[in-house]
Amino acid sequence: MAQERLVTEITPKSEDFSRWYLDLVRRAELADYSPVKGCMVLPPYGYALWELVQQHLDRRIRETGARNAYFPLFIPKSLLEKEAEHVEGFAPEVAWVTQGGSETLEEPLAVRPTSEAIICTMFAKWVKSWRDLPLMINQWCNVVRWEKVTRPFLRTTEFLWQEGHTVHATAAEAEAETLQMLEVYRRFATEDLAIPVYHGPKSDAERFAGAAQTYAIEALMGDGRALQAGTSHNLGQHFARAFGIRFEDRDQQLQYAWSTSWGVSTRIVGALVMVHGDENGLVLPPKVAPTQIVIVPILAGAARGEVIEAARRILEVLRAAGLRVELDQRDEQTPGWKFAEYELRGVPLRLEVGPKDVAKRQAVLVSRLGRQKHFVPETEIPARAQALLAQIQAQMYESALERLRQGTMEVDDYQQFKELMESSRGFLLAGWDGSAEVEAQIKAETTATVRCIQGPAPADARCVVSGRPAKYLAYFAKAY
Amino acid sequence: MAQERLVTEITPKSEDFSRWYLDLVRRAELADYSPVKGCMVLPPYGYALWELVQQHLDRRIRETGARNAYFPLFIPKSLLEKEAEHVEGFAPEVAWVTQGGSETLEEPLAVRPTSEAIICTMFAKWVKSWRDLPLMINQWCNVVRWEKVTRPFLRTTEFLWQEGHTVHATAAEAEAETLQMLEVYRRFATEDLAIPVYHGPKSDAERFAGAAQTYAIEALMGDGRALQAGTSHNLGQHFARAFGIRFEDRDQQLQYAWSTSWGVSTRIVGALVMVHGDENGLVLPPKVAPTQIVIVPILAGAARGEVIEAARRILEVLRAAGLRVELDQRDEQTPGWKFAEYELRGVPLRLEVGPKDVAKRQAVLVSRLGRQKHFVPETEIPARAQALLAQIQAQMYESALERLRQGTMEVDDYQQFKELMESSRGFLLAGWDGSAEVEAQIKAETTATVRCIQGPAPADARCVVSGRPAKYLAYFAKAY
Repeated sequence: MAQERLVTEITPKSEDFSRWYLDLVRRAELADYSPVKGCMVLPPYGYALWELVQQHLDRRIRETGARNAYFPLFIPKSLLEKEAEHVEGFAPEVAWVTQGGSETLEEPLAVRPTSEAIICTMFAKWVKSWRDLPLMINQWCNVVRWEKVTRPFLRTTEFLWQEGHTVHATAAEAEAETLQMLEVYRRFATEDLAIPVYHGPKSDAERFAGAAQTYAIEALMGDGRALQAGTSHNLGQHFARAFGIRFEDRDQQLQYAWSTSWGVSTRIVGALVMVHGDENGLVLPPKVAPTQIVIVPILAGAARGEVIEAARRILEVLRAAGLRVELDQRDEQTPGWKFAEYELRGVPLRLEVGPKDVAKRQAVLVSRLGRQKHFVPETEIPARAQALLAQIQAQMYESALERLRQGTMEVDDYQQFKELMESSRGFLLAGWDGSAEVEAQIKAETTATVRCIQGPAPADARCVVSGRPAKYLAYFAKAY
Repeated sequence: MAQERLVTEITPKSEDFSRWYLDLVRRAELADYSPVKGCMVLPPYGYALWELVQQHLDRRIRETGARNAYFPLFIPKSLLEKEAEHVEGFAPEVAWVTQGGSETLEEPLAVRPTSEAIICTMFAKWVKSWRDLPLMINQWCNVVRWEKVTRPFLRTTEFLWQEGHTVHATAAEAEAETLQMLEVYRRFATEDLAIPVYHGPKSDAERFAGAAQTYAIEALMGDGRALQAGTSHNLGQHFARAFGIRFEDRDQQLQYAWSTSWGVSTRIVGALVMVHGDENGLVLPPKVAPTQIVIVPILAGAARGEVIEAARRILEVLRAAGLRVELDQRDEQTPGWKFAEYELRGVPLRLEVGPKDVAKRQAVLVSRLGRQKHFVPETEIPARAQALLAQIQAQMYESALERLRQGTMEVDDYQQFKELMESSRGFLLAGWDGSAEVEAQIKAETTATVRCIQGPAPADARCVVSGRPAKYLAYFAKAY
């Protein structure tokens, strides 16, 4: 009874995960399809979630000393082409503006797929001396990648993200920045979104186009697939040389600088759905839930006026305590309908107040996790609500971490590797000789890829495919 | 002496206002030119100012009940063409995407010049019943208009803005919303930005393409030109009919809805510069100044360590009081250089602390307005700083209001009208018969336009050009 399934319009998660995801994202109003191919609309609820995600990440980025700025949407073709690997990687995905008003453009403009080319052009102008370094910039914006197959949040033609771009005087500082941002992303995922992740370097095949080294955080979705949730790139001197970012060092020598870039996008909203969601809908971590508590008054009987009065009083008290609270006092919907609706939307706490509660000057707090009921005296509601929200946040992380552990297997046999990738999927930690051939073979035979490298392999470890001495232990998974 | 001009790299405002503006915007790092024609870069200082402007306006918009959302950057050609006047107005300014990756698009995509067409398409899907109304949405985003002549903030190919879009059940509600948002903009300009404005309906010639009625707030720049700082449009049923936004009313009748849209853009940053700036640079209203107080330690002599210690202590205390404070303890720049630099950046308050101040446990607060010095005991600094900032905000508004009053003349003689438009410019309040001919003649002969209509003319008023009975009193000005 306590776990009955209240939502019937959504394909069961156990039946078809992919369909469940699409149904849920639309029904919970996180995203809607638009008449523009591959582009989604973020309705108020989905956008509010993104704004809260942004707030948490923005604060963490600022704490590192990076400052927000804004650069043009358009990148002239010649600029995009300056870094050879970069253009090769992105050209197939670029949307081109060729016409402005009635004028055909002499040079097509790329709608930014990422902003290295335009930002490095400006950096070359801004950086003159070692005193200007490090230069640390972050941009919140929209980017466009021409995608053939799209899926809300996970892969869309246009998406929203932040992209950080930094310039440093030495290789060591650039590497330190790259790793610092990887750690910022890891803590953001785990502490703010309750999403545990693996982190580490990517294989060469999975590197960002133009980077010397890419690092990523990788999360496990409810269907055993991995999702890359954030990347941090050490660009070496590739972009500094291509765009002429040079500075006079302390000895008055002109040097090429070292740069990094790093990004997290609206994809992360898809991860929130697929890591935490259940048969009843979304489950949102309290830190980013647009509504942390919904008050549902039980309006039966003569005490109606008193119940509404109590509900409003509690609303004010909870708002004053700094919580995001809504009161749903609509008459045209039953309390049961409302319970299901807010469960579907992933609201972490429900507060019920009815005639009996008013008489006892109490209310009932019900957790989205397991629907435990807590009868709380009115005076204690704010403190108890805050404690429960903190507990839900912690519990969500612990559960997700447990699923990640359960979903990770160490494998040293390729036959078993293939079978697991066919059945339960998840992350397979295996020895890898570091060769592109093995990586390609695994991808061809299982569609799994190296998600990130855990570290150097122990001395006796063997490559799961070639049997040669393993260079690394790597996390393999099928990925979104 | 107190008013000496510390900045020499910027064309004097009195000599060439336009050059002064361009020099100042770049030198203060509000904007920088980019290699993309007509597109500007917002470096950290300029972007921080925009973020603070956003925060104030966003709060006011939310208070009306509108919620933020996000819609696609691209608008298929066929959608843009649905509302005839709308496409006619915007087509000459549209940047078109015609190529995606290696594929030539069957239908070109407009890079949104404004989002009515895409948002109304979604509204048609979302609105079913009177219960769904009013629907009130706001979007913060970038838009693109292909401009021939550009100027940072005032007219750029890409700019940032918010655009609100609402749907209502009746004509009266749509008009009330249009006027409500005009009032929100008026209060935002006056209370947050210290910019006094005139407000009222536009003439038919100046209406938004597709609107039934456009209202605007209009401000006076330092050179006597007007700047439209925000617009609110009553779209009537034009867009509802074109896009099929219909709802079932309380009597189960299907009705076309009524809609509005309203926007404020990065233009407003240009207004901040041109309303408040002086010969020494920017003057930023404390409510939106990225740095409200800069601490400049006077590091001469033996007391160096104590001075820095005091400066840091004051920094912490002011931060704890919720103020935006910076400490500039660089050695390579003199205090005099720093004074000039932060005046140029428009920082409202400077706090100087030197050996004598440390000995007396005091500091010196110097206002950006008039450079009055206030010797303040250390314990009183936060309270005094807050009081001074509030005073500066009020004083800036009063001064700007006085300049607006001085810059507005009632005129009933066309010869005088033309002479004033040639010399002092400003707003000329004059009788207008409401005819398009008179408006066109004034524009042709003086380049001035109707900025907004103050109201119906008194019974005996005559049109300043035709001599016919005046229908309106209108504010005329040359505008940016």
